[in-house]
Amino acid sequence: MASIRDVAKKANVGSATVSRVLNNSGYVSEETREKIENAMEELNYIPNELARNLFHKKTGIIAVLVPSVANPFFAEFVECIESELYTYGYKTMLCNTVKEGNAELEYLDMLNRHIVDGVITGVHSLDVEVYKKIHKPIVALDRFLGEDIPVVAVNHKKGGKLAAEELLNCGCKSVLQFCGSKAIESPYLDRHTEFAKMMKKSGVEVHNYELEWNRFDADYYEKVMKDVFSSKLDVDGVFGVDQIAIRFLNEARRRNIAVPDEIKIVAYDGTFVTGLTEPRLTVIAQPIDQLAKQSARLISRLVNGKTYRNKKVLLDAELKVGNTTRNL
Amino acid sequence: MASIRDVAKKANVGSATVSRVLNNSGYVSEETREKIENAMEELNYIPNELARNLFHKKTGIIAVLVPSVANPFFAEFVECIESELYTYGYKTMLCNTVKEGNAELEYLDMLNRHIVDGVITGVHSLDVEVYKKIHKPIVALDRFLGEDIPVVAVNHKKGGKLAAEELLNCGCKSVLQFCGSKAIESPYLDRHTEFAKMMKKSGVEVHNYELEWNRFDADYYEKVMKDVFSSKLDVDGVFGVDQIAIRFLNEARRRNIAVPDEIKIVAYDGTFVTGLTEPRLTVIAQPIDQLAKQSARLISRLVNGKTYRNKKVLLDAELKVGNTTRNL
Repeated sequence: MASIRDVAKKANVGSATVSRVLNNSGYVSEETREKIENAMEELNYIPNELARNLFHKKTGIIAVLVPSVANPFFAEFVECIESELYTYGYKTMLCNTVKEGNAELEYLDMLNRHIVDGVITGVHSLDVEVYKKIHKPIVALDRFLGEDIPVVAVNHKKGGKLAAEELLNCGCKSVLQFCGSKAIESPYLDRHTEFAKMMKKSGVEVHNYELEWNRFDADYYEKVMKDVFSSKLDVDGVFGVDQIAIRFLNEARRRNIAVPDEIKIVAYDGTFVTGLTEPRLTVIAQPIDQLAKQSARLISRLVNGKTYRNKKVLLDAELKVGNTTRNL
Repeated sequence: MASIRDVAKKANVGSATVSRVLNNSGYVSEETREKIENAMEELNYIPNELARNLFHKKTGIIAVLVPSVANPFFAEFVECIESELYTYGYKTMLCNTVKEGNAELEYLDMLNRHIVDGVITGVHSLDVEVYKKIHKPIVALDRFLGEDIPVVAVNHKKGGKLAAEELLNCGCKSVLQFCGSKAIESPYLDRHTEFAKMMKKSGVEVHNYELEWNRFDADYYEKVMKDVFSSKLDVDGVFGVDQIAIRFLNEARRRNIAVPDEIKIVAYDGTFVTGLTEPRLTVIAQPIDQLAKQSARLISRLVNGKTYRNKKVLLDAELKVGNTTRNL
């Protein structure tokens, strides 16, 4: 493979001049630049990206940390963010943190070792202090990581309100809410508080079922359904994240409980899996593509030393009425 | 941040000696090594991974190319392969190739520019010749990329046979098969050939519906269902990939066609989405975790200059009977 020296020799210039062209730094006359570019083409010279990275102290790689890409929400987010980062000229390093051992910490450690230019993190097992020690750009998806780290999230309070309004409009009197784990502070939890508040204000009874943290496996979901249906709760409305809502719907059908006539269901997130049920689910849809677009925009600004106006980008969720709340 | 020179000064040795310790190369006495390691700890020295990569000509990164990680099969594969590569000490660069422009080519070009140590590819839009030109280790998931590139795949011929046997055992007389696009040669297509062969041998009529290549969006699936149900095909058995099978099941239910009494359905792949239907789908399940394990094992061997016994690792799919073929 041709080296910088081969290119320099062919173009009859010094290696430093070739380097200036490669790195687009310092003055090189148009004529010389052309000679060098022709030499590169003739020799099929491929710049060694490692060497260039060392020079620029950049790798062109952004790490994206999520608990598990097998979870539909994160699968869609990662799909979108990878495409967005690609248009900004970055490659995506995928880090699934739900693993044996402390993968999140190890991945963050990469930052200090120059492997990536920045991090977009959708996980939250580590203490905020760990993130504060990292002297590279970070954008947090749906997580508070301290004053200096920008957050991109959906306005979950409004999301919870939309869900409550839909179930209230359908005349529910007693509802079951599947809550995310309260182990870690997250904007995500606002929807539960707001949902419960609005329901209680209207005199509706609210039963909360708190889900375990970072459990996305079928066995766990099955256990949850068994818990819920064996408890003989008398509810006429259910609010929960996509996969929980779908499993509740399926279990209700198995037991010949009519949806929406006897029980109404609202799912939160609205990922593609909610398009795979019959009847179609009513959802509060997060704009996953917009979450990705905004995260990519912010990390790109930060990596390039630019500032941002907002430390908190709040997007709106949307109610999409399906057949699990009304007979359309 | 402390540099190698700071460490050398503190340990009272030359920079080259520190470098030998960092790279674990050349002789350094135990005593000196200890002095250097103590100095690193005291100065909180973090080795610059870019510089080390340049020295070793390795990055510790494996690129994983898939059409779209939002597709459940690839989401599960990527989840598993990321974990496997992590245990081998590699980070995963995720490359979704279904994009505007020629992302697959651009991603492959990274190889020649030293960004990654190797590639696992589950895509196939480019000509085999492109892959042959890449002088870095490649492992192909379910694709033929030439004699020298090892393939990890499921024995799809056997998979197709399992599906045919199940529908034959259920007494089907006329079946509809959703086929993958034949635009590119892939072991994946063997299941269609085998399925049709076995059916025809038993006197069963086979209707084939060829799906477009790399289309995973809901709109497309909707169009397919419209096509199929408006054609008033008289079939009593259906065989198709997970999302197609689920959507067929839902559409059948909407039209009050009894499954499995009037039509039996077998899904291929058996990803987590087949656990989200009621009735539960009968599936031919690919061992996605094993595909990932074997791909990671092979790429790790290749990156480390080792050989492999088999250029083709063939795994078995498994029939998991649900309620769309028999009333369990």
